[in-house]
Amino acid sequence: MDAEIIAVGSELLTPHRHDTNSLYLTGQLNSLGIEVRFKTVVGDDAERLASVFRVAFERSRLIILMGGLGPTEDDINRQVVAEVLGRTLHEVPEVIERIAARYARTGRKMPANNARQALVPEGAEWLPNKKGTAPGIWIEQDSRIVVMLPGPPGELEAMFDEQCMPRLKNRVSGSQMRTRVIKVAGLPESEVDQRIAPIYKPYDNPSTTILSTGGAIEVHLTARAATKEEADALLEELTDKIEPVLGDHIFSTSGETLEEVVGMYLVMKQKTLATAESCTGGLLGERITRVPGSSEYYLGGAVCYSNEMKIRFAGVSPRLLEKYGAVSKPVAQALAEGIRRRTNASIGIGVTGVAGPGGGTEEKPVGMVFISVSDDRGAEVREFRFPGDRERVRLLTSQFALEMLRRRIRN
Amino acid sequence: MDAEIIAVGSELLTPHRHDTNSLYLTGQLNSLGIEVRFKTVVGDDAERLASVFRVAFERSRLIILMGGLGPTEDDINRQVVAEVLGRTLHEVPEVIERIAARYARTGRKMPANNARQALVPEGAEWLPNKKGTAPGIWIEQDSRIVVMLPGPPGELEAMFDEQCMPRLKNRVSGSQMRTRVIKVAGLPESEVDQRIAPIYKPYDNPSTTILSTGGAIEVHLTARAATKEEADALLEELTDKIEPVLGDHIFSTSGETLEEVVGMYLVMKQKTLATAESCTGGLLGERITRVPGSSEYYLGGAVCYSNEMKIRFAGVSPRLLEKYGAVSKPVAQALAEGIRRRTNASIGIGVTGVAGPGGGTEEKPVGMVFISVSDDRGAEVREFRFPGDRERVRLLTSQFALEMLRRRIRN
Repeated sequence: MDAEIIAVGSELLTPHRHDTNSLYLTGQLNSLGIEVRFKTVVGDDAERLASVFRVAFERSRLIILMGGLGPTEDDINRQVVAEVLGRTLHEVPEVIERIAARYARTGRKMPANNARQALVPEGAEWLPNKKGTAPGIWIEQDSRIVVMLPGPPGELEAMFDEQCMPRLKNRVSGSQMRTRVIKVAGLPESEVDQRIAPIYKPYDNPSTTILSTGGAIEVHLTARAATKEEADALLEELTDKIEPVLGDHIFSTSGETLEEVVGMYLVMKQKTLATAESCTGGLLGERITRVPGSSEYYLGGAVCYSNEMKIRFAGVSPRLLEKYGAVSKPVAQALAEGIRRRTNASIGIGVTGVAGPGGGTEEKPVGMVFISVSDDRGAEVREFRFPGDRERVRLLTSQFALEMLRRRIRN
Repeated sequence: MDAEIIAVGSELLTPHRHDTNSLYLTGQLNSLGIEVRFKTVVGDDAERLASVFRVAFERSRLIILMGGLGPTEDDINRQVVAEVLGRTLHEVPEVIERIAARYARTGRKMPANNARQALVPEGAEWLPNKKGTAPGIWIEQDSRIVVMLPGPPGELEAMFDEQCMPRLKNRVSGSQMRTRVIKVAGLPESEVDQRIAPIYKPYDNPSTTILSTGGAIEVHLTARAATKEEADALLEELTDKIEPVLGDHIFSTSGETLEEVVGMYLVMKQKTLATAESCTGGLLGERITRVPGSSEYYLGGAVCYSNEMKIRFAGVSPRLLEKYGAVSKPVAQALAEGIRRRTNASIGIGVTGVAGPGGGTEEKPVGMVFISVSDDRGAEVREFRFPGDRERVRLLTSQFALEMLRRRIRN
């Protein structure tokens, strides 16, 4: 089965917005062996959407439309699809009840225009939306499947996984596509490629792609075979060759984020953690607490944006700040040791640096960062020079702080 | 003039790759008043590309194809476009010479397959490529313009700016496109639409789109006119009507983020700020410090993930925690007042809530959040019930904390 994805929304035709949903859907569809052959972006315009949908309906067996299911006048997908397929729209009382109940749960009254979301083409199934109000829609006609999903990623992903994947699984026969992601920390992308290119180049199947995603490098392997088992065996073979040359830079081969891996180690070793952040301003704590259940090991910490806070909350000595400056090895170490002492955590992390764009000097340029990890065996401090803008420097700082922590607790 | 962009490349149909080139082109085209109406991604497949190009050639006046101009067998754009337009390909000696010279400069010999890149459809212009080997192609036929650009961003951008922008400028008869973004906090999307739909609906120009972006609602107005001034006047007229019904929920009409607006107020009023965060785990501090120069007003704060930290870093009384629980109005207020006192900041913010997915009870369900802002006039505390998953609850919490802060300092 071949698929086509249509993203609807005028904002996706501006210079500022990507369609990111289609990447998620493509990954899921590929896992069923379904190939995506076309992707189209079209604005909130009935005539143009109708023309795009007509073409898609002619050439593809599975057509997925995203967005345009909201409660506003802009949201035209239901009407357009129903019209092209020659179906009328009818209001489904159960959907209205569900939307009203959702509003009631959060103590609000449902605005009248939400009733638009309960319009469903005749003969179509509606797909419940656990994370929002707009239901999805599933239509089969002329050996085609048309699926309409809401635009917000959380709603779209949950609905697709729960409602569409099982339905599609039943339809797909034959070729299987399996993917493995090897995640790497502490090496630049070019270095990763240089090490593994001689290994993956000879292979057509699995195919290999290297991606750089906010600090982490990901090696994606995709294999095709008649059965899942055969595809997995192909992945296994290549993975076994790649792993030794990347060694302990690999932090995950089964999807976990770096903060999840660190969390698992902390739980396993029954350690607690506290952070004292300067240039990251809370990003490190935020990443650690993205993981549900992180309260089990993360006590919290201090965002020490001013010198005063470094002294008061992490016990850094004023003399040290004066002698070496806030961005320095000794201050990073004092932050890590101080926050550990003050919170009685097993491990303390201290971070200080120049995120830019201002504040850089010849001696301490933008991108200079010091990170320290302190535990009962002592403290480790490392100096970094990160490239890029403020956002990138902060992101890389949080990434390397987590990576230093991972290496320290693993040993 | 309306434009359509076609990105060619099988890698753009995997779960791992975006088409980012089209965002750049869209920005440049918009600056000439040219609207992008469709974007399509298609793989390196002659038949599929031909079908996509045929549809585009029928409905759009300017068609830009990206990628598929390389020297390998995969690179099919030249052949497909020539065939659909009924033109033959011929080799241009000057292009071959240029490619060979390029190789010679770096001491290499031109591989034979590079000659493919010198194939140009009959009657077309070729566009020199300063940053690579593949020339671009410019064809005019049936009042259409077809442009073929190389895929690598550096080559594409340089070629488009130097070769295409001047040519397009000559064709565009005056029409200018201008955009304004009205950003709104503290109202749900449906409520914003209900209030302003009666105002914007009668207008075709400017066109209006409402977007929900991580807590903030954005109203995008786009106007077209012969001159910039006329387009701006159209924007002004509609903005003047929309502003009163959204009132002080509007926090920006010139692009600033909520954290930037809050920062400007704090600088203006010479106030300092400190935060005590529980459920957001550092996100609030991270957002505040995204703004360059935020160290001028943000002192820092505490991430109080454990009760112990709430007591030690924000001075919350153990009695209060025991009596009301960590997620409660009194504790939110104590966090705000405590962090303000301990840091000598003018304003303190305290945040506590249940981000989920675990930890919810009947009395204190997932999504229940308390936010407090404390200053020398006293403390304000508000209770919220946010919908959505852990990530969304945390994002909305940070958004409403910033919005409460904005309202408080503005007055």
